[in-house]
Amino acid sequence: MKVDGTDYRTIWLNDDGWSVGIIDQTRLPHVFTTLDLKTLDDAARAIRDMWVRGAPLIGATAAYGMALALRDDASDATLATATDVLLATRPTAINLRWALEEMEKVLSPLDPTERVAAAYKRAAEICDEDVEINAAIGKAGLALIEAIAARKPTGEAVNVLTHCNAGWLATVDWGTATAPIYMAHNAGIPVHVWVDETRPRNQGASLTAWELGHHGVPHTVIVDNAGGHLMQHGKVDLVITGTDRTTATGDVCNKIGTYLKALAAADNSIPFYVGLPSPTIDFRVEDGVAEIPIEERAMEEVSRLTGRTDAGTIATITILPDGSPAANPAFDVTPARLVAGLITERGIVDANREAIAAAFPERV
Amino acid sequence: MKVDGTDYRTIWLNDDGWSVGIIDQTRLPHVFTTLDLKTLDDAARAIRDMWVRGAPLIGATAAYGMALALRDDASDATLATATDVLLATRPTAINLRWALEEMEKVLSPLDPTERVAAAYKRAAEICDEDVEINAAIGKAGLALIEAIAARKPTGEAVNVLTHCNAGWLATVDWGTATAPIYMAHNAGIPVHVWVDETRPRNQGASLTAWELGHHGVPHTVIVDNAGGHLMQHGKVDLVITGTDRTTATGDVCNKIGTYLKALAAADNSIPFYVGLPSPTIDFRVEDGVAEIPIEERAMEEVSRLTGRTDAGTIATITILPDGSPAANPAFDVTPARLVAGLITERGIVDANREAIAAAFPERV
Repeated sequence: MKVDGTDYRTIWLNDDGWSVGIIDQTRLPHVFTTLDLKTLDDAARAIRDMWVRGAPLIGATAAYGMALALRDDASDATLATATDVLLATRPTAINLRWALEEMEKVLSPLDPTERVAAAYKRAAEICDEDVEINAAIGKAGLALIEAIAARKPTGEAVNVLTHCNAGWLATVDWGTATAPIYMAHNAGIPVHVWVDETRPRNQGASLTAWELGHHGVPHTVIVDNAGGHLMQHGKVDLVITGTDRTTATGDVCNKIGTYLKALAAADNSIPFYVGLPSPTIDFRVEDGVAEIPIEERAMEEVSRLTGRTDAGTIATITILPDGSPAANPAFDVTPARLVAGLITERGIVDANREAIAAAFPERV
Repeated sequence: MKVDGTDYRTIWLNDDGWSVGIIDQTRLPHVFTTLDLKTLDDAARAIRDMWVRGAPLIGATAAYGMALALRDDASDATLATATDVLLATRPTAINLRWALEEMEKVLSPLDPTERVAAAYKRAAEICDEDVEINAAIGKAGLALIEAIAARKPTGEAVNVLTHCNAGWLATVDWGTATAPIYMAHNAGIPVHVWVDETRPRNQGASLTAWELGHHGVPHTVIVDNAGGHLMQHGKVDLVITGTDRTTATGDVCNKIGTYLKALAAADNSIPFYVGLPSPTIDFRVEDGVAEIPIEERAMEEVSRLTGRTDAGTIATITILPDGSPAANPAFDVTPARLVAGLITERGIVDANREAIAAAFPERV
């Protein structure tokens, strides 16, 4: 999408033909800057330290990370080591595993001399496929927004609430949860987005708000506590979030706090949808709450916050009293019963085993 | 309760016999400092700028504010003006109105020469009554915690989740939601408190964590998004929050985000209780969601955050991108159907019209 009038993707091959460019998302929304990844360790660090985040972008970065690793040594040993190193960076991200399996499928049978070129080719395909998938999600979700707009007085905005950042910054382009929003906006349908700030890392306030603003989409940031109240008062027409991992039965693992919004949506008869590319579906998991391991991240993400001082510098402050510990579970699971539907590249799929299996029979 | 070994209340008459001492709660948790209120405007500013907050403490401060106003001029005109000035500071706080009505009831019939002494006397009584009420709430809620502790293996902590600060800092002493916790802790029952940070003003992270820590109660701060996940995984036994205003039918208006925790508690069969002094019940309101006006506060509370830098100074940072607006509804309403019970100074009362009326027949 656009940044200051220029079209960007979140990851690209540089003109040198081998190093990989990314946006340093940790510096948004205050500073827009790009970084070059030149080694496996660069790619692993980019994922682990969240220079890149979002399931599809993590997968794409891992794919390029494999290509960078093979440039040094294209042996079977490197293939195995690089897979281990990259898998360890974000254990909850199913796309990470999917992308690495895709890479292995292509690279393993090849002679080591052919692997580097093949790795770059497959990584580029994974990126292009992600863009196509998100565009398809956007078209499917657009129909939901069009239907709501048709029931409203002309010119009245459709209010969409989203949590965290499942925007184009979380993917290669378009985003998942945001793809329908961008498509509706581009089609001239008035859309307004309630952006959950999404503590502790504030990806909503810092990334979703930034990207919507740069594309010109009307939006309002709210604290994570506010969504239920807005829903009670008819100010939300539709909830669309992303997901890091969705089970074969339609349970949705996503950023911590998603479950609370799904409960509020259900309590107020507001449809709660999840935009997802089908690689995010993990057919090996049945019961999301019981089976999905939830990453516990550092307490400093809760106790410390970074932002811009009035002098324009970036500063980090501590908000907890000395001696008070914090816990930081990074994700939660929204049971399928609270999900109105999954917006996929093959259209809208009900959040249950039968519908998911019918939509993706080749994966069951 | 204790601060660095010294017993404090949150508001007191100074040794000069007329000025009023308070804790500057805006500087907590990083700096503990007290302030003197010497005029009506001081008292109004203390409430409006949240040097003091919490329904009972707001009421007590308003009562002393009236006494300070009358020192200058004890006429009927001042009585009316001071009431207006104080009422305008926090329109949602029902205790504010209650305390001012109590003052007017005592002061209005008196000769102006008798009003100052009577105002100080009634303000001191309002404070003492609040302490007694909270101690009674604590005893009633203690029974709930004892019952849960009795079902657990010996020594295993009872996990209580609370939102915002309905602690002793929000009252004159003991707190409302925290009174049962302090009583259980003082009685040797192992208690652990999950403290919602409570964006946007972070009263949980900055005040509840601070006061629990200073009293020695084990606790862990979490982002507001985390409670649902903890409940899904059996890590919460009981939710206790405060309330700024509860209707005759048991709908609970409290800090924004309370409703989301009540939904999660209901979805996981965890009892959701509300600690409240009976003046918080507004018998004039039937339908909390439809009738209670919700204060919309400044967007800067969402976009800016204050904390301590590593250098030890207090700094304010901006966390939103330039050009992104924010909305800031300060409260929400939890429908009575989600409330297991109201912990009052007259014991635990079911959250419905009949039970509330039976417990407080003199107010119906």
